[in-house]
Amino acid sequence: MSADHGTAGGGFTAVVLAAGKGTRMRSDRPKVLHALANRSMLGHVLAAVQEAGAARLAVVVEPGRADVADEVARMAPGASTHPQAERLGTAHAVLAARDALEGEGARERADVLVAFGDTPLITAETYARLRAPLRAGAAVAVLAFEAADPTGYGRVLTENGRVVAIREEKDASEAERAVRLSNAGLMALSGTHALSLLGRIGNDNANREYYLTDAVALAVADGLSVAVVNVSEDEALGVNDRVQLSVAEATIQARLRRAAQLGGATLVAPETVFLSADTVIGRDVTVEPHCVFGPGVVVGDGCVIRAFSHLHDARLMEGADIGPHVRLRGGAVLEAGVHLGNFVEVKNATLRAGAKASHLTYLGDAEVGAGANIGAGTITCNYDGVSKHRTVIGAGAFIGSNSALVAPVTIGDGALVGAGSVITRSVPAEALALARGRQTTREGAARVLRETLKAAKASKDGKRG
Amino acid sequence: MSADHGTAGGGFTAVVLAAGKGTRMRSDRPKVLHALANRSMLGHVLAAVQEAGAARLAVVVEPGRADVADEVARMAPGASTHPQAERLGTAHAVLAARDALEGEGARERADVLVAFGDTPLITAETYARLRAPLRAGAAVAVLAFEAADPTGYGRVLTENGRVVAIREEKDASEAERAVRLSNAGLMALSGTHALSLLGRIGNDNANREYYLTDAVALAVADGLSVAVVNVSEDEALGVNDRVQLSVAEATIQARLRRAAQLGGATLVAPETVFLSADTVIGRDVTVEPHCVFGPGVVVGDGCVIRAFSHLHDARLMEGADIGPHVRLRGGAVLEAGVHLGNFVEVKNATLRAGAKASHLTYLGDAEVGAGANIGAGTITCNYDGVSKHRTVIGAGAFIGSNSALVAPVTIGDGALVGAGSVITRSVPAEALALARGRQTTREGAARVLRETLKAAKASKDGKRG
Amino acid sequence: MSADHGTAGGGFTAVVLAAGKGTRMRSDRPKVLHALANRSMLGHVLAAVQEAGAARLAVVVEPGRADVADEVARMAPGASTHPQAERLGTAHAVLAARDALEGEGARERADVLVAFGDTPLITAETYARLRAPLRAGAAVAVLAFEAADPTGYGRVLTENGRVVAIREEKDASEAERAVRLSNAGLMALSGTHALSLLGRIGNDNANREYYLTDAVALAVADGLSVAVVNVSEDEALGVNDRVQLSVAEATIQARLRRAAQLGGATLVAPETVFLSADTVIGRDVTVEPHCVFGPGVVVGDGCVIRAFSHLHDARLMEGADIGPHVRLRGGAVLEAGVHLGNFVEVKNATLRAGAKASHLTYLGDAEVGAGANIGAGTITCNYDGVSKHRTVIGAGAFIGSNSALVAPVTIGDGALVGAGSVITRSVPAEALALARGRQTTREGAARVLRETLKAAKASKDGKRG
Repeated sequence: MSADHGTAGGGFTAVVLAAGKGTRMRSDRPKVLHALANRSMLGHVLAAVQEAGAARLAVVVEPGRADVADEVARMAPGASTHPQAERLGTAHAVLAARDALEGEGARERADVLVAFGDTPLITAETYARLRAPLRAGAAVAVLAFEAADPTGYGRVLTENGRVVAIREEKDASEAERAVRLSNAGLMALSGTHALSLLGRIGNDNANREYYLTDAVALAVADGLSVAVVNVSEDEALGVNDRVQLSVAEATIQARLRRAAQLGGATLVAPETVFLSADTVIGRDVTVEPHCVFGPGVVVGDGCVIRAFSHLHDARLMEGADIGPHVRLRGGAVLEAGVHLGNFVEVKNATLRAGAKASHLTYLGDAEVGAGANIGAGTITCNYDGVSKHRTVIGAGAFIGSNSALVAPVTIGDGALVGAGSVITRSVPAEALALARGRQTTREGAARVLRETLKAAKASKDGKRG
Repeated sequence: MSADHGTAGGGFTAVVLAAGKGTRMRSDRPKVLHALANRSMLGHVLAAVQEAGAARLAVVVEPGRADVADEVARMAPGASTHPQAERLGTAHAVLAARDALEGEGARERADVLVAFGDTPLITAETYARLRAPLRAGAAVAVLAFEAADPTGYGRVLTENGRVVAIREEKDASEAERAVRLSNAGLMALSGTHALSLLGRIGNDNANREYYLTDAVALAVADGLSVAVVNVSEDEALGVNDRVQLSVAEATIQARLRRAAQLGGATLVAPETVFLSADTVIGRDVTVEPHCVFGPGVVVGDGCVIRAFSHLHDARLMEGADIGPHVRLRGGAVLEAGVHLGNFVEVKNATLRAGAKASHLTYLGDAEVGAGANIGAGTITCNYDGVSKHRTVIGAGAFIGSNSALVAPVTIGDGALVGAGSVITRSVPAEALALARGRQTTREGAARVLRETLKAAKASKDGKRG
Repeated sequence: MSADHGTAGGGFTAVVLAAGKGTRMRSDRPKVLHALANRSMLGHVLAAVQEAGAARLAVVVEPGRADVADEVARMAPGASTHPQAERLGTAHAVLAARDALEGEGARERADVLVAFGDTPLITAETYARLRAPLRAGAAVAVLAFEAADPTGYGRVLTENGRVVAIREEKDASEAERAVRLSNAGLMALSGTHALSLLGRIGNDNANREYYLTDAVALAVADGLSVAVVNVSEDEALGVNDRVQLSVAEATIQARLRRAAQLGGATLVAPETVFLSADTVIGRDVTVEPHCVFGPGVVVGDGCVIRAFSHLHDARLMEGADIGPHVRLRGGAVLEAGVHLGNFVEVKNATLRAGAKASHLTYLGDAEVGAGANIGAGTITCNYDGVSKHRTVIGAGAFIGSNSALVAPVTIGDGALVGAGSVITRSVPAEALALARGRQTTREGAARVLRETLKAAKASKDGKRG
């Protein structure tokens, strides 16, 4: 998707309707904050309308939802929010943002694009296409899709490529019901006519609601031109329950995977790899099946991510080779050629070039020097129950298997820690540290112990029986 | 699916045919015991016919298969089993259960529903629909589906909504072959006519078998009414090999996932989450991709199950947050707000509210007090080679990383175990226990050791060369 | 797929074109070396043409690519390689292998089959079918598929089942564009005519390239018979980018899974199981969802592979039961009835019958005796920073949890190692070895320490604030 959709032709005002209750989500969380690819649906919409060139962004929200306001502030810092106190229909919702359209600071006669917080798949390109007819003289442009089964949708009736009406199912003739072109709900209104049209929409209908769709009839009655812009049914998907949420997730994932593949990454089984909206993957990267990328992951060229790896807020430099069964958490940095093997977790730690930790290891709040070798079962004991502390391991150091490094502690360059040690004091460079018990071996004692245990068990079982 | 399908209209007798060899399964296990969503196919059928209101259940089995009889006893305690000694066709199989239809204790003139142990996707609702025409006067009702490709199926020929014949492929005219309505095999017979029809079925055919389908021709010849009940081809699937078994599994999984989603759980990638027939998932639960739920799992509201988690016979209370890479086994109970991180296994253990075990830990046969913190690499040594023993960890206790707790042992409330300890004796509340070697550090010794090892290797390689 | 496709009717010469640049792969690796089911695309093609009965194999390669030559030598030891210095079209590429067609050692008038290194899904059966018409008198046979959307493909025009022309899109009439039968590019040429046809192909076209397709027009002009052999569009897929690579992978995986299922393995969710081209799976094996089989894996009858297992170069004998979350690496051998539990890695190690390692263990360069029990958290310390060493554990030995076995070391039959031990010296049979610190417990000290740590933190936070 090119980034220049919107700059041409001047900015417009986007009104994003994000106040819906979302009852069918069966959730305490507002519907628009449910996430796709680890970004809220609202976040996807805000990102797309900004990329499409919105000069001003007004978000209509349920009153008193700090979580929604926070998300708006995070994803679109310049946007205004507008509480919709009563829920009286989509046109009423748009006019909740009237200040953004006509008040102080509003861009005079800017075109208005109405987007929905729960149609998260609409791309920036589509938003730009929806607005385009306004510049060619249309007063209104509506977004429509050819529905596989249009039952229940408002039909978009056209003549010579212009919209003559949007007919609701219940009002449609048999011929009109056969029309499959269906109203997606999104609309662009020219700055010249937007407020006039919106202001004249009435609520003379069964539900006593103000419907944005009625702007079409008003425009047609005024002799204005109403354009239709097509979109695929998939892209127009509105999310109302968690089944639809997962359908939308699948679409977003397909887009992200495809982009990574065409960029030069092999996803052996793309359908089993889950990316985040912000995942960055380099060239000649191999991702085995069954990997999950949380937010904030950057993977350099030539890396290999083996199966069952779970990455979050992590950076892998060129040629890092990790997994299977690796967990990277907040602040993991793997420099070039680092190798992590199975059942290894790295959190808030930097591993310098060529360092290795091949099995069953936890490295937290740590720095590991270039070429250091971390034995199986090594654990940085970073938490004392009250505070977190750092472990520093020098270049070329060798940490024997099953060792515990009790932070704060430093292992010097080239130092060696014997297997099974509990290191509580720092070890100088090139020193050898051991901290483990002496071995005692008692001949024949295993047999004796085994017999004793069996006898005890038999006695116990006998008492039970 | 509502639970009241069958109670209206009085009970019926269900005959479940479960004696099939299943050669194409290439298995030592009887076909009907192969599982879908961790419940045997037979178990699914028994559950559905019971839910549909069967008052009596007769299962026709291969003689001498205790495993099948056990499954019947487990899934339908009141059911009778009837060995089918010879394999002479479906009608012969039904009559193997003649005792249940006419013998002592049989419900006089009860309607008979014939189900198959290898069509496990038929729902209780469909069984109830299949029986319904009998109450409206039909003598027989057959289940049929519109086949995408009907080749090989018996065609259901109808006139005015009534079945006039079921025509086998080889006997069908060209026009009849064009019919796509195909016989699924399942049948309901009114109590008034069932035994008469079944008893008159002959074996005058190429295979010398008694075919249940022939009841249709007999009923039509008697001038009785034969109804057809439609079902989707997917639901009618019969399982004959392991490819079909996996197709059936996919259908069952889709049903289970959809129910969980509509109930308010986010399955980020439902196609990668595998549930059991008895899995219970609460509201506002999030399940990341790639999770497997074995039998006996209950997940409370607001829980988070991260990727690569494998749960079996486990109970998670409100707000527990586990994974990725967590294994819960038999008898794991996680109280509210418990956190388990990566590479953690819990078996036969209760973790009280707010307890944490974040990495690389095994808690088996244990009780962990509220708010206790279990360090990385902690292991409860519950097995001495002969018996299992319990570990009890008090509220607010802190177990240092890489510790081994040798059961039976008790760590008191608020006690602290130093990292790397092997605890063999109980620790009182608020006490500090250490059980590890003292650290000795020898300056420069790493370099010396490394050189020695390299020289030894060079010498060894030299001798080899 | 039967193995006798090609033996009938004498051998032929296969020319495999493998010199393509593959720019759209965006890779430093040659396109034909990208892998499907852990075998290169070229390897799949070489295996299939050999299975189809190629008596001689000539591979046309990019000059100077040792990696491609190595792959040819590995997958088809008798094949010759032929550098294509200039890239002047497919016919030019075939003639780069002219030596193999007419030079010393060439089989006189052997039929020629032209295959492509980037159409890896063509089966041996299809190659054999493609050659078959030559034996019935055709001079040329072309492979073609019914394209869902033929745009861009050369259309195969036929009359009475014989090819009259292959028409490129740009030269096609409207009627010809409506033809959906499309040229897959692969071709068989009879030995009698091959060199004559190939030698007369010119480059009188826009790109100044020599197109193999032109052999069809030449043959038709000569009055020779040109046959068409059909293949599905899926099988004809050419791989040009990594999206197509993953589509091809999915097709290969579907074939491998289906074969395993029909052979008697239950793949609960086949779409989540990834096999290698050489994976061998026995009867009554169960594979849970989400497993990955790398190259070199053999699984015996009755084994259970639980979810999230990752196997590579490993052999499981009858009834082994592993996972979930198991990693098997190079040289892992599990004898009958071995059990491995979660977070266990085995590398270059043999576990004798009935041995168990249930949790959080690394067994590398080891031998574990029959019935031995390896406790949770056990680690074989096989690497001293310079060399690898072996660990030998006797039959019936018991290794207590969280132990480190520092190799080279031997634990005798029936010996017992206490939990948390670091074993550096061998332990005789039936002996008991302990190597851990003594426990000291200080009453009330946890409370004191906790207060001290909190005070230190408060002081530190205060200084920061």
